[in-house]
Amino acid sequence: MIDLFKPVRMAMIGGGNGALIGPVHRIASQLDSRIALVAGAFSSKADQSRETGRQWGIADDRAYADWQSLLRAEAARPDGAELIAIVTPNDLHYPIAVAALEAGFHVMSDKPATTTLEEALRLQEAIARCDRRYGLTYTYSGYPLVRQAREMIAAGEIGTVRKVVVEYVQGWLSSAVEAEGSKQAQWRVDPARSGPGGCIGDIGVHAFHLAEFVTGSTVSRLLADLAAVVPGRVLDDDCTVLLKFDNGARGVIVASQISIGELNGLRLRVYGDKGSLDWRQEEPNRLTWHKDDGRTEILRTGTPPIGPSGAAATRIPGGHPEGYLEAFANIYRDFADSLREGVPSALVPGIEDGVRSLAFVEAAVTASRTASGWVSLEHQDVPA
Amino acid sequence: MIDLFKPVRMAMIGGGNGALIGPVHRIASQLDSRIALVAGAFSSKADQSRETGRQWGIADDRAYADWQSLLRAEAARPDGAELIAIVTPNDLHYPIAVAALEAGFHVMSDKPATTTLEEALRLQEAIARCDRRYGLTYTYSGYPLVRQAREMIAAGEIGTVRKVVVEYVQGWLSSAVEAEGSKQAQWRVDPARSGPGGCIGDIGVHAFHLAEFVTGSTVSRLLADLAAVVPGRVLDDDCTVLLKFDNGARGVIVASQISIGELNGLRLRVYGDKGSLDWRQEEPNRLTWHKDDGRTEILRTGTPPIGPSGAAATRIPGGHPEGYLEAFANIYRDFADSLREGVPSALVPGIEDGVRSLAFVEAAVTASRTASGWVSLEHQDVPA
Amino acid sequence: MIDLFKPVRMAMIGGGNGALIGPVHRIASQLDSRIALVAGAFSSKADQSRETGRQWGIADDRAYADWQSLLRAEAARPDGAELIAIVTPNDLHYPIAVAALEAGFHVMSDKPATTTLEEALRLQEAIARCDRRYGLTYTYSGYPLVRQAREMIAAGEIGTVRKVVVEYVQGWLSSAVEAEGSKQAQWRVDPARSGPGGCIGDIGVHAFHLAEFVTGSTVSRLLADLAAVVPGRVLDDDCTVLLKFDNGARGVIVASQISIGELNGLRLRVYGDKGSLDWRQEEPNRLTWHKDDGRTEILRTGTPPIGPSGAAATRIPGGHPEGYLEAFANIYRDFADSLREGVPSALVPGIEDGVRSLAFVEAAVTASRTASGWVSLEHQDVPA
Amino acid sequence: MIDLFKPVRMAMIGGGNGALIGPVHRIASQLDSRIALVAGAFSSKADQSRETGRQWGIADDRAYADWQSLLRAEAARPDGAELIAIVTPNDLHYPIAVAALEAGFHVMSDKPATTTLEEALRLQEAIARCDRRYGLTYTYSGYPLVRQAREMIAAGEIGTVRKVVVEYVQGWLSSAVEAEGSKQAQWRVDPARSGPGGCIGDIGVHAFHLAEFVTGSTVSRLLADLAAVVPGRVLDDDCTVLLKFDNGARGVIVASQISIGELNGLRLRVYGDKGSLDWRQEEPNRLTWHKDDGRTEILRTGTPPIGPSGAAATRIPGGHPEGYLEAFANIYRDFADSLREGVPSALVPGIEDGVRSLAFVEAAVTASRTASGWVSLEHQDVPA
Repeated sequence: MIDLFKPVRMAMIGGGNGALIGPVHRIASQLDSRIALVAGAFSSKADQSRETGRQWGIADDRAYADWQSLLRAEAARPDGAELIAIVTPNDLHYPIAVAALEAGFHVMSDKPATTTLEEALRLQEAIARCDRRYGLTYTYSGYPLVRQAREMIAAGEIGTVRKVVVEYVQGWLSSAVEAEGSKQAQWRVDPARSGPGGCIGDIGVHAFHLAEFVTGSTVSRLLADLAAVVPGRVLDDDCTVLLKFDNGARGVIVASQISIGELNGLRLRVYGDKGSLDWRQEEPNRLTWHKDDGRTEILRTGTPPIGPSGAAATRIPGGHPEGYLEAFANIYRDFADSLREGVPSALVPGIEDGVRSLAFVEAAVTASRTASGWVSLEHQDVPA
Repeated sequence: MIDLFKPVRMAMIGGGNGALIGPVHRIASQLDSRIALVAGAFSSKADQSRETGRQWGIADDRAYADWQSLLRAEAARPDGAELIAIVTPNDLHYPIAVAALEAGFHVMSDKPATTTLEEALRLQEAIARCDRRYGLTYTYSGYPLVRQAREMIAAGEIGTVRKVVVEYVQGWLSSAVEAEGSKQAQWRVDPARSGPGGCIGDIGVHAFHLAEFVTGSTVSRLLADLAAVVPGRVLDDDCTVLLKFDNGARGVIVASQISIGELNGLRLRVYGDKGSLDWRQEEPNRLTWHKDDGRTEILRTGTPPIGPSGAAATRIPGGHPEGYLEAFANIYRDFADSLREGVPSALVPGIEDGVRSLAFVEAAVTASRTASGWVSLEHQDVPA
Repeated sequence: MIDLFKPVRMAMIGGGNGALIGPVHRIASQLDSRIALVAGAFSSKADQSRETGRQWGIADDRAYADWQSLLRAEAARPDGAELIAIVTPNDLHYPIAVAALEAGFHVMSDKPATTTLEEALRLQEAIARCDRRYGLTYTYSGYPLVRQAREMIAAGEIGTVRKVVVEYVQGWLSSAVEAEGSKQAQWRVDPARSGPGGCIGDIGVHAFHLAEFVTGSTVSRLLADLAAVVPGRVLDDDCTVLLKFDNGARGVIVASQISIGELNGLRLRVYGDKGSLDWRQEEPNRLTWHKDDGRTEILRTGTPPIGPSGAAATRIPGGHPEGYLEAFANIYRDFADSLREGVPSALVPGIEDGVRSLAFVEAAVTASRTASGWVSLEHQDVPA
Repeated sequence: MIDLFKPVRMAMIGGGNGALIGPVHRIASQLDSRIALVAGAFSSKADQSRETGRQWGIADDRAYADWQSLLRAEAARPDGAELIAIVTPNDLHYPIAVAALEAGFHVMSDKPATTTLEEALRLQEAIARCDRRYGLTYTYSGYPLVRQAREMIAAGEIGTVRKVVVEYVQGWLSSAVEAEGSKQAQWRVDPARSGPGGCIGDIGVHAFHLAEFVTGSTVSRLLADLAAVVPGRVLDDDCTVLLKFDNGARGVIVASQISIGELNGLRLRVYGDKGSLDWRQEEPNRLTWHKDDGRTEILRTGTPPIGPSGAAATRIPGGHPEGYLEAFANIYRDFADSLREGVPSALVPGIEDGVRSLAFVEAAVTASRTASGWVSLEHQDVPA
């Protein structure tokens, strides 16, 4: 007899040392009791890894000092972790993911999948080869009303999509905070750690992912203008990208990290020939639906008009706001269900999303650098 | 050597059976790894209690079939629970709380503390006698910007408080859903289970609590108009209460459960002689601050203008919305810290709040029933 | 042959001297070319009256130094004014209105109709006796979406009205600005010029009028708590009034002029047993409509869902905001049409509204002063 | 002695026949009693011109059947019009403007100044040659808070401008309404009447104008993607334009007329290195100001923080919303003042704005058609 509710055992690599994203993964993964955190290599310093482990209820002997040890030891235990969450700096996502898959683990990786498109394609190949599941935390796809929008568009509620406007604006890099000690800023403005994209890779990809996720369409061409606005930067901190989708729709991405006063201003508008949808991450529990008869409806989480995918992503009654952590948790929950049920989830971003995002970043950076106008977003298969 | 991060061991009584509030307490209590759920009497049916326990990672032998057994067994274990969370129907809050305290446990109780003022006063006495800590989940006081508002008012930022307007409007009881199978409605409209107050006791008390919590002032008199609007009801489902505070300020509470379309429309406005504050639960991450020089500022969670108490209640950067569960978790976290540090927390509602809330409900019901005009909110000590 | 478009000839009494309300009446009355301003006694000083007249295109010989001369001279001219607009201080509204009616003019009066209920009843009698038309500028009833709300409620769109919440909050009297030279404040806080009501008479009546206008129901009883919050005041500057309507519905009016930061915060919410409506004067071109199936619609001026009365009150396409002056102009326009067509307009407030408003103020003041609880809003006919 | 308040005498050409824009010009021009409408050639049909004149209080002998007669007759009268308002279809703006100037009149023209850049340059030359004043109704620059934003940016309140995002989205052309009898649509989608630009010329220019007006900077280069989305159209109905300003700032214009549900969604955001501003036409009385210390202020019309140019553009107290007609009136009022005082107004758009707008449209159309990437917005002087 299978116990459907036996939680998936997870180990986390990275996430200690006061990083923000570690606790987010911890909270999100465990919010619904579908996943149990049983081990971790939270830091490359043994002491810190153990200290973080103690805070999170991990026995000392499962708080490892390096990820290689973790993979080896957990693979050997009968009650070892089944799933590895990768929460390290970006440049380690790729080697850890491949090693974990090869050691027989499923993987949930913080975004980006890898730092280059080539790596992403290799990772895609490794996932197929190892026959393991791989999830990628494109968080915003976990919001109930993002899923509602996706479901409505798939059902034809706004007709054929014609125009997509995604803005993702932040202001926290509007001055050279990297020179004032901000670690969050330092690695983001450093090409060695971030790869070729700055703002485009950090948040532009979220906008890009959301556009494809919600519309169900694929971007085929783009045109980009990337700028390093703050003096001294080499990576872009402000970008505009024009999109053409394979169905003929057009799109615009406005992404910026120098927009003073903006916090996490992700907004998605999709215009079809029968209606439109408008959603903002900072007020995530409302979705505006304009119809072609002139009527405007406000869809709110936890109310009867919300369809199955939005309703399933909500835990508490309407009017009790849920936010970012709950959206993040939805991705973990769906991934856990997918593992337990042995079927892929259409809602959990995977390596395909990772590959496309890296293709997007590389195309945008190249297009902008050469002022080449429209470029194709096609990509080759993994190099032999 | 004290391990500051060793989590508080908690057992939950009630909360299984598909109830909403059980999972809320579970998620909230464990969100910050300060509390570990180690045992439960989740249901009065042994099977269901065990089933819920399994979902939540509780060993079968600590998933009890009744709360008396739980208290007895956990008190006897060296690694037994230290804290009891009471998540049962309202009429059990009082006996369980007293029994738990007398068995040496600390208690976190869902609201209300008891169903009558007299019980609340007896409970207050029991807490003092047993020298244990007692918390009450007046959730809304856990929101970062509610605490910010409290801190600002205490610091004199809006001067002397003159007027408080609290509205708490819902629409889910606008028709006789209790006759259509809604369990949530059935106990709320039943005086045997809810006590003398309907809407006033269910949500009016939250408005009342918030008014006192944020202003730091005490309501001394009130005038109430309670109505049972939906035919067939005996308890109020719509109420207006006028308040006078001990410092001379006036207040209004508009509470309703028949306001179609309203979800959980709690809004607090406090007007002082130097400024005012305006906060809405459904958009909890913004606080509007009007100043007497004509300027209006929007304070947002996770930004520099937020003071210590608001900042401490936020987990993730500004623009990443936090909501109801996080507010709930703040109360648990502060209570856990209070237990570990052995000092009371000014931010965690306690039995005083429970007593005042029941005095409020009883005064409002009486005043409205007799159309007696203004009545005092003073109450006697516990009857001998 | 009747020229339907020949404008109504109007003379204005008062409104010069830099007063705010004179220009508002001038702009509003002429916005739609239905009314021509042909004469005025804009000030009691001949020079100032003439000066104002010149600015507004009035020949010197029709810019009178006193209102008695104006009535006499204009009544005698073949091309004389047909309509008198009364824009004087409140205590002159009554004598001028009666004199104008008796001289054969129609009258549009700024609110209030008179300063006492007794005068209002006498004026009502004079209007009937003289068989002239009388309009009263309860401005807010001129907003397109207020009329839309009225039309929807009359059509049963939200079912039977159960609850009405009207708030009208301002902050400009939050300190003793009357002592610092504010003329607008000085007459308002002076019982000799304002009558017995302060805030209740100045803005509370707008809230009251709106409640009755939109619901089509009549308030039968009220309970009031009026306060003079700012030290030194004798008239109320902050009030709460509970209402009971003749159909059994309940209501609350929260009116205040000491609510710092509030500008002209008039908001109306009406809850029925099938839906609800929510409108705010400061964003007047949106009306929120909640329905009992859980759907929420935003009705916007100038869009197809708007019905006849709302559409007729809009001049420009949706998305081009119209505001206070346009609402004011709607009342003038409808009054002009009513005069030209010889039929009364259901949309233009008249003496009945004036009488009820004064009954409301007097009842509220009396009830609050005596803390008498609920009082009837019935009133006697004019004393013999 | 000059009578400062003697109104400017104006004649209107066009605007009858139920057109929308005629009444808007009439209301706006006369709202402040600075301008008197004394004559018109409202329609090319004598009857209709006279009929419109009667509605607007114009004597029959000054309601002309054609604009040539009007110019001739009014120029000959001692009390003739001084100012000609041009409210005809776009292709007549140029010939009438030139003829009026040559006949000695000042001119206020509806936008666009002309239909081609070449004409605009010739008109610029004619204005200089005739030494008359010329105004252009770029309405949105008349809003109080647009002027406030301009003043703040000029004063350095947000530092050096880095990024400008202007969106102007409408939905009314989202289907082929031109085939269903919409006259408003028919001329807009017809290159013969609209010139080479569709959406870009109709509303894109407003966005462009606003960007330059508010920032005080000049666009030097642009890149455009214009699309005719609705089948059968030859002119663009949806466009995105990237901008580079002469000071190095970047910009984006998102303009669309196929965005279902959007009414008149003009929004302007300007990001500097010390702060940012955010304004929306549909809620025009609020301006959001983010500062680099993390604070966010809401500036509201009619409140103390508003500076001179915003305050002068407001007629009534804060909280009493003013809208589109009042903004339009501000342009007329400032133009009238400029005529009376004999000095140009920095706030009234003129032929330079007309020239730049046409250069913008032509550059955008060309750039998009040839997919040429970035193009210069420089333009030559008028051809010899």
